[in-house]
Amino acid sequence: MESLTVPTTQRCQMIDVTAEVQAAVRQAGLTNGCVVCFVPHTTAGITIQENADPDVVHDVLWKLQQLVPHREASYLHGEGNSDAHIKCSLIGMSQMVLVEDGRLVLGTWQGLYFCEFDGPRQRRLLLQFLPAA
Amino acid sequence: MESLTVPTTQRCQMIDVTAEVQAAVRQAGLTNGCVVCFVPHTTAGITIQENADPDVVHDVLWKLQQLVPHREASYLHGEGNSDAHIKCSLIGMSQMVLVEDGRLVLGTWQGLYFCEFDGPRQRRLLLQFLPAA
Amino acid sequence: MESLTVPTTQRCQMIDVTAEVQAAVRQAGLTNGCVVCFVPHTTAGITIQENADPDVVHDVLWKLQQLVPHREASYLHGEGNSDAHIKCSLIGMSQMVLVEDGRLVLGTWQGLYFCEFDGPRQRRLLLQFLPAA
Repeated sequence: MESLTVPTTQRCQMIDVTAEVQAAVRQAGLTNGCVVCFVPHTTAGITIQENADPDVVHDVLWKLQQLVPHREASYLHGEGNSDAHIKCSLIGMSQMVLVEDGRLVLGTWQGLYFCEFDGPRQRRLLLQFLPAA
Repeated sequence: MESLTVPTTQRCQMIDVTAEVQAAVRQAGLTNGCVVCFVPHTTAGITIQENADPDVVHDVLWKLQQLVPHREASYLHGEGNSDAHIKCSLIGMSQMVLVEDGRLVLGTWQGLYFCEFDGPRQRRLLLQFLPAA
Repeated sequence: MESLTVPTTQRCQMIDVTAEVQAAVRQAGLTNGCVVCFVPHTTAGITIQENADPDVVHDVLWKLQQLVPHREASYLHGEGNSDAHIKCSLIGMSQMVLVEDGRLVLGTWQGLYFCEFDGPRQRRLLLQFLPAA
């Protein structure tokens, strides 16, 4: 298992961690299989999105904010970050990335994005390496 | 593979199954790897959320209900549970949990929650144990 | 690793790929474990849903369209398919399916659906086979 540190700088932010995960897979020596990328937090998530046009990240964060506003009268949780918890469950807290010949198998436009929903914070991303059959 | 029984008591409900999954991992003898938690239903899901303040679970369920109301004029499915099917695809029907030294690797505030969206029913949660590389 | 081709015929569409994935698992010779189904695109996803009543698929696609309309004034991405990118992150780009005795372990009503959100296109679905512990 490997643990990466992901410092975030805004309340809501998507950070491309593809290179860090690729480096960890190489260091772990996984040739063929999968790397499980797991976020051990309840107000952050992880997704895969287009890494060419940064406007895509803007639009994803904007829509999430529109669907799940920061403040709503019906939220009961006293810390004021219910939106972050909810976004986390919608986006998901783990992603599977295939590995072939030691390289992440991603589509041409795919990048792996750590999703901060209640930053800025010092976050962690855990990686587990699973061999292919 | 292991199969756990999850009885639910309400139409919409999130049930903490962390202890049951931890016990199953121990019994299976998995030391390092991942446990895949899979819900073999189309109107229930599984997520990971804060297990400290129960208000978080309330807020997640409330927001899902707000985004996907029980009844909508445009739903075609005759059984009246389209909301449950849709919530299931939004939340997801499986979660990966890392395992190290026989223990689930979860963040301080993380718990594994079975999500009932069309109960009460007798549900199942399937577990598959994958070894690390 | 295996790569399946999935031709789509509409802009938004859910296509049952269960039989193709089952055939690939058999051909790969995986007896017990998991198959990771990964979509290498940023405007398509994959989910598991009811395969009995096609109205369920209609209702899922309708609700996604209602939550994430095709055109919105606040979208910045110039290609006009921000909705597809967002839906992709909400639904997810991978699914884990358990395998026992060479057969996919799915609930009675579950089918594996490739989700096209910006078609028609020629798409791919990647499969990785992970053995059980």
